[in-house]
Amino acid sequence: MKFFCCDYHEGAHPEIMRRMIETNMEQTVGYGEDEHCGRARQLILEACQASDADVHFLVGGTQTNATVIAAALRPYQGVITADSGHINVHETGAVEASGHKVLAQPSIEGKLTAAQIRAYAQWHKQNGAREHIVMPKMVYISNPTEYGTLYTKKELEAISRVCREEDFYLYLDGARLGYGLCAESNDLTLPDIFRLCDVFYIGGTKCGALFGEAVVIKNESLKKDFRYMIKQMGGMLAKGRLLGIQFETLFEDGLYMKICRHAIVQAMRIKGALVAKGVSFLIDSPTNQQFPILEDPVIEKIGQKYGYEEDQRIDESHCAIRLCTSWATKTEDVDALIEDLNQWL
Amino acid sequence: MKFFCCDYHEGAHPEIMRRMIETNMEQTVGYGEDEHCGRARQLILEACQASDADVHFLVGGTQTNATVIAAALRPYQGVITADSGHINVHETGAVEASGHKVLAQPSIEGKLTAAQIRAYAQWHKQNGAREHIVMPKMVYISNPTEYGTLYTKKELEAISRVCREEDFYLYLDGARLGYGLCAESNDLTLPDIFRLCDVFYIGGTKCGALFGEAVVIKNESLKKDFRYMIKQMGGMLAKGRLLGIQFETLFEDGLYMKICRHAIVQAMRIKGALVAKGVSFLIDSPTNQQFPILEDPVIEKIGQKYGYEEDQRIDESHCAIRLCTSWATKTEDVDALIEDLNQWL
Amino acid sequence: MKFFCCDYHEGAHPEIMRRMIETNMEQTVGYGEDEHCGRARQLILEACQASDADVHFLVGGTQTNATVIAAALRPYQGVITADSGHINVHETGAVEASGHKVLAQPSIEGKLTAAQIRAYAQWHKQNGAREHIVMPKMVYISNPTEYGTLYTKKELEAISRVCREEDFYLYLDGARLGYGLCAESNDLTLPDIFRLCDVFYIGGTKCGALFGEAVVIKNESLKKDFRYMIKQMGGMLAKGRLLGIQFETLFEDGLYMKICRHAIVQAMRIKGALVAKGVSFLIDSPTNQQFPILEDPVIEKIGQKYGYEEDQRIDESHCAIRLCTSWATKTEDVDALIEDLNQWL
Amino acid sequence: MKFFCCDYHEGAHPEIMRRMIETNMEQTVGYGEDEHCGRARQLILEACQASDADVHFLVGGTQTNATVIAAALRPYQGVITADSGHINVHETGAVEASGHKVLAQPSIEGKLTAAQIRAYAQWHKQNGAREHIVMPKMVYISNPTEYGTLYTKKELEAISRVCREEDFYLYLDGARLGYGLCAESNDLTLPDIFRLCDVFYIGGTKCGALFGEAVVIKNESLKKDFRYMIKQMGGMLAKGRLLGIQFETLFEDGLYMKICRHAIVQAMRIKGALVAKGVSFLIDSPTNQQFPILEDPVIEKIGQKYGYEEDQRIDESHCAIRLCTSWATKTEDVDALIEDLNQWL
Repeated sequence: MKFFCCDYHEGAHPEIMRRMIETNMEQTVGYGEDEHCGRARQLILEACQASDADVHFLVGGTQTNATVIAAALRPYQGVITADSGHINVHETGAVEASGHKVLAQPSIEGKLTAAQIRAYAQWHKQNGAREHIVMPKMVYISNPTEYGTLYTKKELEAISRVCREEDFYLYLDGARLGYGLCAESNDLTLPDIFRLCDVFYIGGTKCGALFGEAVVIKNESLKKDFRYMIKQMGGMLAKGRLLGIQFETLFEDGLYMKICRHAIVQAMRIKGALVAKGVSFLIDSPTNQQFPILEDPVIEKIGQKYGYEEDQRIDESHCAIRLCTSWATKTEDVDALIEDLNQWL
Repeated sequence: MKFFCCDYHEGAHPEIMRRMIETNMEQTVGYGEDEHCGRARQLILEACQASDADVHFLVGGTQTNATVIAAALRPYQGVITADSGHINVHETGAVEASGHKVLAQPSIEGKLTAAQIRAYAQWHKQNGAREHIVMPKMVYISNPTEYGTLYTKKELEAISRVCREEDFYLYLDGARLGYGLCAESNDLTLPDIFRLCDVFYIGGTKCGALFGEAVVIKNESLKKDFRYMIKQMGGMLAKGRLLGIQFETLFEDGLYMKICRHAIVQAMRIKGALVAKGVSFLIDSPTNQQFPILEDPVIEKIGQKYGYEEDQRIDESHCAIRLCTSWATKTEDVDALIEDLNQWL
Repeated sequence: MKFFCCDYHEGAHPEIMRRMIETNMEQTVGYGEDEHCGRARQLILEACQASDADVHFLVGGTQTNATVIAAALRPYQGVITADSGHINVHETGAVEASGHKVLAQPSIEGKLTAAQIRAYAQWHKQNGAREHIVMPKMVYISNPTEYGTLYTKKELEAISRVCREEDFYLYLDGARLGYGLCAESNDLTLPDIFRLCDVFYIGGTKCGALFGEAVVIKNESLKKDFRYMIKQMGGMLAKGRLLGIQFETLFEDGLYMKICRHAIVQAMRIKGALVAKGVSFLIDSPTNQQFPILEDPVIEKIGQKYGYEEDQRIDESHCAIRLCTSWATKTEDVDALIEDLNQWL
Repeated sequence: MKFFCCDYHEGAHPEIMRRMIETNMEQTVGYGEDEHCGRARQLILEACQASDADVHFLVGGTQTNATVIAAALRPYQGVITADSGHINVHETGAVEASGHKVLAQPSIEGKLTAAQIRAYAQWHKQNGAREHIVMPKMVYISNPTEYGTLYTKKELEAISRVCREEDFYLYLDGARLGYGLCAESNDLTLPDIFRLCDVFYIGGTKCGALFGEAVVIKNESLKKDFRYMIKQMGGMLAKGRLLGIQFETLFEDGLYMKICRHAIVQAMRIKGALVAKGVSFLIDSPTNQQFPILEDPVIEKIGQKYGYEEDQRIDESHCAIRLCTSWATKTEDVDALIEDLNQWL
């Protein structure tokens, strides 16, 4: 059984493991104040072409989202998101657990628009009873989205502009950022994202690390006391250097981009094979998650040899499923999958 | 200027004020353990034809909703509501502030259906990653709804049945319950509501009291330690007898129903006058809130003599407004309003 | 049975009740934006000799404390208090429920010292792992304290100075402020308190009102969006004018001071009678709460005719009890109590 | 510079690293439902001589404490702890952030007594205003404590008995459990702890793992929906197998005990050398943390060659410092330290 269910089936990229072993008996101070973390911060700033941002390393995505949002908002403020946003549906209410309302907006292909944000801001401001309504203060987007789609530079610029005009923080969840940056149709660079957002995170867990997310805080007013928040939210790893070592490795010599590109290549091979057979897709995704709509008997066959994730039923005889590649996906496993698909379709 | 904006423009029904004066220098114990609260509890149980429920008195609606919901749910559980529900839009995120997600569902005329609840329950249970999703555990409805509409007995029975089958608590917000019980088309009695819900509250603030809401808890598992919750949430009034005296007065000799009926009579007069002029309504409300759709110049004229609440713009030249009557609405003010409307329309 | 247990056995001062009746059928807007609230705000500012503070009216003390503290602190910040402080022992953890640690310090006679605050601030700042420790940011004191004692002007000035130097907010809980201001030994005026604190509240519930506390916010950074906090915490009274009317009445013609002085006079009569009999006290209180240490048989006799509150056992045969007067205490009831005490002691 | 500041300076025990490499490219399901976690659970149950407990793996100690406590308590309930308890002083208020009061009790050498717990329970129950006071419901102890001391079997039995009689949950924080179990004077086995507690955790981070804590839940009422809590609190590691692999390794062939014993041997060597020189200690610790009281010039010399942690100033010329050994402490580093100490003292 080969798994294509998600992008965190394996451990870490071998180069990371090599560095973990190599540094294992070094003695360092704890809690992210060691030299590996320092160097990883430097490398990330360079990749962002930034000079003065704060970079913090947390263990996982839900923790990161909950921490960033709780650090940014006053108790009566909420965060605008697409209704399909990870914080709205897949984090067991972690944002609400810290007291904040998630202001979910209807979305197409997982994306929020500048116009939606503007409309919500206006609605709140013009409401006579606005103190009875949660005040919007942050916009959360993910790129790639939950459906693998990407914001264009133009879209992100428009969102960023609205956020600045409305005095909202713009937060980009980059759990799969590497896969987005490497997609063929992508026109957003890391420096663009740094320029347009107030805070974002570069995902490690799904992009080659054992675990770890690097939060980049550009907006001055979000920087203050962030380490207190990390500690309170349970995200301050005692042996913080484990995070430093991983991001140091990923951002040296372009490893992050290189291994993510591999995933995209494999995903595009699968997509191409399906398209060639006339299969339609729930969404036209340019990244490592593909959502083909298939007939139930075909899905059943796939399930006997390959792991996949059910997404949604389309009609009586069709379902959309998710097939996911990663830095760890083996070319020969994709070969086999394509061969099988060609036979079954 | 006569106000028809809402149902809490005045103080309390004169009979309540008379009793407040009469008892003013009595010495009682605090925090709701006095004899007036005791007697009010007894009268409410009788009105519900109940023997063994717990009755608690809180000061206001937002406080009551937040307290009941926080008392009922575990941290990872949420409450299903219509998207127009008061807890979703008009309580500044008080439910989220206690850590719980409000699971808002699309609604028609402010109402939730048994089928929606069932579908949500099924979706959660069948989800492979259900621990990543907030667990639904309570259903919140209001009756009358935010739009003045009512649940029929059949509808409430269906909702109650689904809740029991899915092991959800059913909570009914009765901020305007009196106006619902008195509506001509209503077929739900207080004993029905008691029978079908796990917990509900009988609104005082909007129905003749200075302030105060009476929470009736039937479900045994919701009773435990509720007074701790009231105190923690800031809802335990030191001079609790003020709440007792008001509900004692309202539930003696049918005062609650009598004064609410007056509001309905006046609302129906206004509705009748508008209907006679061919005015259409945002919603066909049988209770004290009416939502006529009027031309802007007419609304402007109304605004010069009467208070009303803007609801929503319908098109370039029309808005829906809210006109609200209450126990305190004067017949002569309604006479004047109708006369003016007849002239302006 | 005459009650001397606490200062909230009765309703409100008759003048307040008169005004409530008088204004009962006035139509006003809700939520504290009416003219009565406006006028009450003005009168309170005048009493404080202040020009630019924000004044908000809330219903009760626990609600007020929880709201002020939650509005002031970031999630990782805590509030320093005497261990006997109301927020630490008598509010069912309402402060913690909003996520903040109460940093309780050992206290003598219910009071915190400037030196204690300084020491705590230093300890935190010098701690190498300070991000692992809750950051102190607010100091909570009550005046009178839970034991009826008062801060001197010199003490409050010292505390205020430390708070400014350490960048802490100073918050004074004035649930019984009127009784403090009227005490013979008191040297703190309302303008002093305004000058020295960042935020404080003037208690109504225990000082002549049916309910209500007036929060005075001087510090600019605490003013922003406070009404959102009130609403979220369930403290925004729909018929806000009820609070306005009460404080308007209390702060017209010096009623607040006049009625509190009465309580002090009666308390001093009881204290004098006990002192004359050689009774010792748990604490030398100059305000309306007295804590005599009495033999058990005497306490038993008192309990048969008068309400009192147990405070603590001193030894096998003695307890300290609390006897409390208020604006409503009748001179003849105190006469009777003193006569009885003279006989029993 | 050799570090003796804490027990998390290095990575993981080489055997763990070996297994991490070995399993790195295995494909497993996520979130702790893989076979490594399954096997680790089985090995831990065997070590506890238990058959039916739930075992969950979390990443770090603060996260684990906050999750266990939030899962166990209702909003108005608090947790009794020694004032030196980790949850009270070193977790940035993570317990309060989830809404619960930490009921800190004065302690000697970091330990709580059964009598203290009983006294607190009685005080709460007998209080007339008990609904105004946080309800105690859980007892938190750590073993070893923050000061390296241990509970005896008799002490833990007494605490356990009180907890059962008062219907409190007993929770043991075993961040350094391995070092406690291996101490010479220890008479508590893992099966004893399992028998006496409702829930406890076996620390990995400080005892040989890269990270990770294994929560063992015995009490049936604490088991329900615990995975929802882990996810909401941000503690559910995507690649959960990393935790499984580590605990699998630690609990195979007694590795956990073996490597912890090494730390104790080294700590006792340091202690012995200091005792021989007549040095006194802040506390007589039988575990891997030692708190000698030394003259400032000696401390300065130590600081030039060795890492240590300042604990507290004793008098003008003496401080207590913490010297800490671990599974990774090298015998030759201890040799050197002892030699130096012998020279400097």
